Amino acid sequence: MKKLKSHKTFNGKTEFWSHESRVTKTEMKFSTFIPEGDVEGCIIWLSGLTCTDENFITKAGAQKALGKRKLMVICPDTSPRGLNLPGEHDSYDFGSGASFYVNATTPGYADHYKMYDYVVDELYEIIQNTFKVKNISITGHSMGGHGALVIGLRNPEKFKAVSAFSPIVNPMVSPWGIKALNGYLGENKDAWKTYDATELIKAGKKHPGKILITQGLSDEFLEKDLLTENFVKAATAAEQDHAVKYCEGFDHSYYFIATFIKEHIKHHEGLLTS
Amino acid sequence: MKKLKSHKTFNGKTEFWSHESRVTKTEMKFSTFIPEGDVEGCIIWLSGLTCTDENFITKAGAQKALGKRKLMVICPDTSPRGLNLPGEHDSYDFGSGASFYVNATTPGYADHYKMYDYVVDELYEIIQNTFKVKNISITGHSMGGHGALVIGLRNPEKFKAVSAFSPIVNPMVSPWGIKALNGYLGENKDAWKTYDATELIKAGKKHPGKILITQGLSDEFLEKDLLTENFVKAATAAEQDHAVKYCEGFDHSYYFIATFIKEHIKHHEGLLTS
Repeated sequence: MKKLKSHKTFNGKTEFWSHESRVTKTEMKFSTFIPEGDVEGCIIWLSGLTCTDENFITKAGAQKALGKRKLMVICPDTSPRGLNLPGEHDSYDFGSGASFYVNATTPGYADHYKMYDYVVDELYEIIQNTFKVKNISITGHSMGGHGALVIGLRNPEKFKAVSAFSPIVNPMVSPWGIKALNGYLGENKDAWKTYDATELIKAGKKHPGKILITQGLSDEFLEKDLLTENFVKAATAAEQDHAVKYCEGFDHSYYFIATFIKEHIKHHEGLLTS
Repeated sequence: MKKLKSHKTFNGKTEFWSHESRVTKTEMKFSTFIPEGDVEGCIIWLSGLTCTDENFITKAGAQKALGKRKLMVICPDTSPRGLNLPGEHDSYDFGSGASFYVNATTPGYADHYKMYDYVVDELYEIIQNTFKVKNISITGHSMGGHGALVIGLRNPEKFKAVSAFSPIVNPMVSPWGIKALNGYLGENKDAWKTYDATELIKAGKKHPGKILITQGLSDEFLEKDLLTENFVKAATAAEQDHAVKYCEGFDHSYYFIATFIKEHIKHHEGLLTS
């Protein structure tokens, strides 16, 4: 584990790290904010398309609210880097910066794009073993909101709280999702379902905590790619506890995230430290 | 005035603008955060070397504290753009992104690099006439902290409050400052003194408000380029009211600014609305 940069921030440190990942077989980067003193829990933040480990930690303004609550955050990069797989760098919504947090099975991608295992196993172990924090939860934005919902629903015992900003809740029927799932998993729709929050709920997956979703109503991607109501319908039918907050006038940007991040941190705090 | 982007943020809007400047004779960009409802004052934020109109508004996390206090902020770009003056793009600390907020007199630069007048006159008028806000104050970071101190001390009637993060307080004896002042003003040291906060204080310039400076003690530029104590000595001798807060462990980054921006906003609020 290499510490690349460290910046004192409020009552803690914002830091940037790299390490050789056993899962992706590449160097992986992540950022952290860790308050001074005892840390009571860790929120994993998964970023959206085109992002890196830097977007959330520089733009969301989460450090103050985290520090007050003795919580750390860890923000992994959004895909492996430094490879040259077929088509990997051709578009913003597939390949580098666009892993969709799946375990890819298609040629080339299958060897490295194992971001589901990277988050669920390797990053999880780093939090527990390197940073010595046991209570872990997960959230994210857009593609990362999708990742948080999928990972939380499939691993309710590991992730004590789940939330999402502007998540792609039903990627099987979203243009972004269809392109990514096809590229990483091929044409087998049964495989796609294991990475689709709405389909997971329909198949009986549940999380014991209330799932919090915050969604801007002026989000340009809401109707075509995010499809929030598909999740709401499935969660309501399956009696998965959930709360969706629609926010008038807010878009898909980090200004939206910055406005509501404290509400999510409070939500995680309640479940992480109970 | 063209509005380029608008993002709802807390109880207001973060927006990006461009306009044809009569002073720089180029297109100039700036960003704003404007809370809903009546606005009681406007803080001008001047950014540091290599920055644009985007750094503060995306990284400082100031919107919440501004909105609560009915204050707007306006963040101009750090230099004219779109020119190709001799040496303009050769280094990070001179030319584009590095105006030092002076009125240049050297060939080529004299025609466009009039950032002092741009801020003191043109931007000031935009705030009063376009945004209809009368009470105006100024702050900034590093090169922008230098700009804020110089502009505030030379125009105490126009700028009701002055503060700075990690300012270059005595550019005449700082390597960054010497390079810039020489490049924009030539060798005439008397001209340099009119853009040096410490020299302005020594020459009798004063601001009626308390000048607040916040400075990280782990700032790598403190000893060679910022030279905070030179200002403290001059201000103390001249009985210029001032407060310098040294912050253990903090560096020159926006993480430092984010940590203390609320204190500066409160400082400005007190003087802007009194």
